Amino acid sequence: MSKVGIIMGSTSDLPVMQEAIDILEEFQIEVEVDIVSAHRTPEKLFDYGKNAHTRGISVIIAGAGGAAHLPGMVASLSPLPVIGVPVKSSNSIDGWDSVLSILQMPGGVPVATVALNGAKNAGILAAQIIGSSNDKVQKRIIDYKEGLKQKVIEGAKKVKK
Amino acid sequence: MSKVGIIMGSTSDLPVMQEAIDILEEFQIEVEVDIVSAHRTPEKLFDYGKNAHTRGISVIIAGAGGAAHLPGMVASLSPLPVIGVPVKSSNSIDGWDSVLSILQMPGGVPVATVALNGAKNAGILAAQIIGSSNDKVQKRIIDYKEGLKQKVIEGAKKVKK
Amino acid sequence: MSKVGIIMGSTSDLPVMQEAIDILEEFQIEVEVDIVSAHRTPEKLFDYGKNAHTRGISVIIAGAGGAAHLPGMVASLSPLPVIGVPVKSSNSIDGWDSVLSILQMPGGVPVATVALNGAKNAGILAAQIIGSSNDKVQKRIIDYKEGLKQKVIEGAKKVKK
Amino acid sequence: MSKVGIIMGSTSDLPVMQEAIDILEEFQIEVEVDIVSAHRTPEKLFDYGKNAHTRGISVIIAGAGGAAHLPGMVASLSPLPVIGVPVKSSNSIDGWDSVLSILQMPGGVPVATVALNGAKNAGILAAQIIGSSNDKVQKRIIDYKEGLKQKVIEGAKKVKK
Amino acid sequence: MSKVGIIMGSTSDLPVMQEAIDILEEFQIEVEVDIVSAHRTPEKLFDYGKNAHTRGISVIIAGAGGAAHLPGMVASLSPLPVIGVPVKSSNSIDGWDSVLSILQMPGGVPVATVALNGAKNAGILAAQIIGSSNDKVQKRIIDYKEGLKQKVIEGAKKVKK
Amino acid sequence: MSKVGIIMGSTSDLPVMQEAIDILEEFQIEVEVDIVSAHRTPEKLFDYGKNAHTRGISVIIAGAGGAAHLPGMVASLSPLPVIGVPVKSSNSIDGWDSVLSILQMPGGVPVATVALNGAKNAGILAAQIIGSSNDKVQKRIIDYKEGLKQKVIEGAKKVKK
Amino acid sequence: MSKVGIIMGSTSDLPVMQEAIDILEEFQIEVEVDIVSAHRTPEKLFDYGKNAHTRGISVIIAGAGGAAHLPGMVASLSPLPVIGVPVKSSNSIDGWDSVLSILQMPGGVPVATVALNGAKNAGILAAQIIGSSNDKVQKRIIDYKEGLKQKVIEGAKKVKK
Amino acid sequence: MSKVGIIMGSTSDLPVMQEAIDILEEFQIEVEVDIVSAHRTPEKLFDYGKNAHTRGISVIIAGAGGAAHLPGMVASLSPLPVIGVPVKSSNSIDGWDSVLSILQMPGGVPVATVALNGAKNAGILAAQIIGSSNDKVQKRIIDYKEGLKQKVIEGAKKVKK
Repeated sequence: MSKVGIIMGSTSDLPVMQEAIDILEEFQIEVEVDIVSAHRTPEKLFDYGKNAHTRGISVIIAGAGGAAHLPGMVASLSPLPVIGVPVKSSNSIDGWDSVLSILQMPGGVPVATVALNGAKNAGILAAQIIGSSNDKVQKRIIDYKEGLKQKVIEGAKKVKK
Repeated sequence: MSKVGIIMGSTSDLPVMQEAIDILEEFQIEVEVDIVSAHRTPEKLFDYGKNAHTRGISVIIAGAGGAAHLPGMVASLSPLPVIGVPVKSSNSIDGWDSVLSILQMPGGVPVATVALNGAKNAGILAAQIIGSSNDKVQKRIIDYKEGLKQKVIEGAKKVKK
Repeated sequence: MSKVGIIMGSTSDLPVMQEAIDILEEFQIEVEVDIVSAHRTPEKLFDYGKNAHTRGISVIIAGAGGAAHLPGMVASLSPLPVIGVPVKSSNSIDGWDSVLSILQMPGGVPVATVALNGAKNAGILAAQIIGSSNDKVQKRIIDYKEGLKQKVIEGAKKVKK
Repeated sequence: MSKVGIIMGSTSDLPVMQEAIDILEEFQIEVEVDIVSAHRTPEKLFDYGKNAHTRGISVIIAGAGGAAHLPGMVASLSPLPVIGVPVKSSNSIDGWDSVLSILQMPGGVPVATVALNGAKNAGILAAQIIGSSNDKVQKRIIDYKEGLKQKVIEGAKKVKK
Repeated sequence: MSKVGIIMGSTSDLPVMQEAIDILEEFQIEVEVDIVSAHRTPEKLFDYGKNAHTRGISVIIAGAGGAAHLPGMVASLSPLPVIGVPVKSSNSIDGWDSVLSILQMPGGVPVATVALNGAKNAGILAAQIIGSSNDKVQKRIIDYKEGLKQKVIEGAKKVKK
Repeated sequence: MSKVGIIMGSTSDLPVMQEAIDILEEFQIEVEVDIVSAHRTPEKLFDYGKNAHTRGISVIIAGAGGAAHLPGMVASLSPLPVIGVPVKSSNSIDGWDSVLSILQMPGGVPVATVALNGAKNAGILAAQIIGSSNDKVQKRIIDYKEGLKQKVIEGAKKVKK
Repeated sequence: MSKVGIIMGSTSDLPVMQEAIDILEEFQIEVEVDIVSAHRTPEKLFDYGKNAHTRGISVIIAGAGGAAHLPGMVASLSPLPVIGVPVKSSNSIDGWDSVLSILQMPGGVPVATVALNGAKNAGILAAQIIGSSNDKVQKRIIDYKEGLKQKVIEGAKKVKK
Repeated sequence: MSKVGIIMGSTSDLPVMQEAIDILEEFQIEVEVDIVSAHRTPEKLFDYGKNAHTRGISVIIAGAGGAAHLPGMVASLSPLPVIGVPVKSSNSIDGWDSVLSILQMPGGVPVATVALNGAKNAGILAAQIIGSSNDKVQKRIIDYKEGLKQKVIEGAKKVKK
């Protein structure tokens, strides 16, 4: 079955990106995690982007902070859909830098951007992409959404009391 | 084959959203275009979101401006991947309103956001999503990227002269 | 007498929204509190928006954070005045996302937006709306404002010493 | 019946504010229009704020640009609900100044803020406020919303062809 | 001799505004401190603005946060130079609201705005204004600047070691 | 009598700064205009800042755009009150650069900042500063404010018809 | 002698980048111009970055708009100083995207960023870098600065008349 | 050999600027550290800017916060390349003030701006500038980049386990 490749620019991004790994495991989707830095390991970035689709990966999730070039550069190298997670790193200007350098890609090279630190949503989006051609996975998403609803309904009961 | 549903909040968004239609036709992917306003036709939004995946649509592209709720609301109703296009409408505050109200979705309900007015990239991303489980479409993406490269190389020749 | 419906996207918004409940109780106006998530319980949102005005509610206060669609979506479904409270949630981009996705509603569907985390003011505004056709409530507002003035005058005395 | 007081800081705000007048006439609600400048006619502002509720006005709409103090100052003087319209004036910093100086009112003195240049929505909101205690007006709002829906459905038909 | 009137919207602004009081005392300039809230004590604001120049005050310093209307409203009422101090209050949107609602005054009614929380500079500016027609005070400013220079030179010595 | 020194970074700032010259002439206050570029004529800047107060100037107005250092640098060199006018120049980022680089001066060296392109207000503020120790000038300011009021009242008459 | 490599993401950046070419010719410094797109010709980017320093280039100037990855990616590949020019492209969000995605590089990989559309300054900076080890070029910079000063002094004469 | 001059506006900037000193020592490049305040020691600024290139300094690094004029003013006085470090000081508006007042220099006077608090990158950039005419230093940069790569590869091993 389809595999999701999760990459990030630095081990310091792992606490944020872990949420993508966790939710994909909840959806029983195989993940492959790696550190690929656009700025410090450009050769590895090239290899990764060029070959990911040839070894069973069907969606890439890339997280990075500051002037975040990893998602866009992988998207330039791979024919796969690339999901970008803007990470709010320590010297970031309130996260605007990561958001804009991932979101505002030029015509021809899209990155599917999610919210600041939104790694969980990146995982769900990857599952939805796989689910769009896989009924079993789509069913799990429908169930997941049903679960979200139930939690809100439980919460509402407590508030109303 | 897979179909892409393209919706927008108003006919005034069509000039921007047409680029998504055009590029998907270039990729020979069927599109279904409709006007669905989150704020003026909420019932239609509900029907659309609830049923799109049951009638052959595998990716939804939703464009909207200002306090842009259409992409997020469709994403809340559908198990399909939803691509959001922030449209820079006339009374927008420089586009920030559309960008943030599409991008910053809460945990559980992702929207794959592209650049401001980035409808063309939304179309390409939809094709990449379909291509992730369809070799023929993926091949067309690889060819498209090759075409982009050739155009840059042609441009470079002129500049160097 | 008129009732105010207070809804919020998540129980995590309650600490902020409690101020609206408290001030309305101070004004002796009945409130009805519920959790309604635009993105996780869209059906409940529909029911709520469609029916609130038929069961004695005359003003709705809706609080939400991030890409905050609850106030605008309720406003699209209900003929009642809807007051939106932008909540500064944890992964918010400094609150700009909630502010803009509540404030910048398109022509036809207004949301009466108050300050970031301004639930207290939302409660006062609801009271002013009820007071605009109810002299007893309007009198309480005039008294409340008189009280604010007295507190400032007391403060001024201390500073002058 | 209830009357809406519409004030603005300068005659140059009239082109924007006219939309509030027009929509309220469409709702058959009486309006009273005046120029009141917080900064150039502070005495008139005082008179206006202190007395509006005593002469049949039940909602105030105040539009202003730049460091827009008119809505907040009227709100400080009147027990009525005050709707603020941030106007994008010529030397405005992209409208942020008017938006923030109307929206971010301190606890105790709310202004119901609408979108930048959103005078039409200010008018609809005033009608909703009146409609919250007047069934005839509320009925007109329900009809108005039905009309919005029909226009979208007409637009959708053209796009689908 | 000239007196400086220092006002602020709330006792909670005092920790910030104290720096203006302290530096003016250092310059041996008389200050008169008061709490005047534009939104909660509008009548006191009126009295203050109308009469300050008639009772020996030659410069007004006004500090306020959020939608900060105090400096601009006093400036509209008084012929004196008014210095505005944007205070970064608790629910402020990073201080932008106070800065813009003080700075962006319309043509005809200036406020001399200083940096966010810049009460010390407001005090120095008031001293410079008085010093522009009072040689003794101007001499103290020249000495003060000399003192700033000496402190930097001392600091430089330590760093160079 | 007191003289106002008006300087700007470039002749291209003159159309904006002319408003300061005009209003000061209306107040019958002598002005002295010069081009002083912090970045291109630093020696002239030094001379100007060091000596302005010794040759009859009592207030300095300095206008500049982009990374606008002229007002702050003159303020560092002169004991006089310095009014800064942020000019929205061609490659400015919406004026934010000029506003922030003039407003956010460090403790010890204030610049009295007015609105973006607010040269007229800079002129009025200079007159108010002179008027704070000169009854004749203060009287003219009171009259000027009276004139502003009359214009608004005239405008209001037209709107009411 | 040293050569400056000027690259840009697209021929549409040429009107902005031409100013760098022109000023370097004025400084009699050899330039080599090319189109290198980070996103459309990643292989060419790699070649360029890896080899520029081996064929006589001593400074690289890279201009790009939107999510501008070219300057940072070349900086990751080359040991040379890289000057980044944020270009305000058509769908840019007021230039903030290009500025932040060039400026906010992570520790280890600097880009020397100049102002939005500041290609002329990029050229001057490249000349200053070459001039820091070449007296003849440094002399030309000193002369150039002298020329800037003379132009301001000429302008000042006209204004004073 | 070439020396790098490191200056900052205040000793409070030293914790940030120390990273530039440290990395340059790692590159075995001589540094000279000083406190030079544009606003409090303008004469020292003048001396520094005018003479740095005559006493063996080949690159200047200048760090400052708030309305940060030091880098630009030194750049106006010196023919050397000047690297500006925006420091996020305590009353800064999220760092935007330092960034914009360093970055947005007018045509003719560039400052090579690095990321907010990016003193380490300023040091590396200075080394790259020296290395552009010094093979030994350039070799150290190539080695440094190799080291960065190795650290990422080590990190990747741990994540993959």
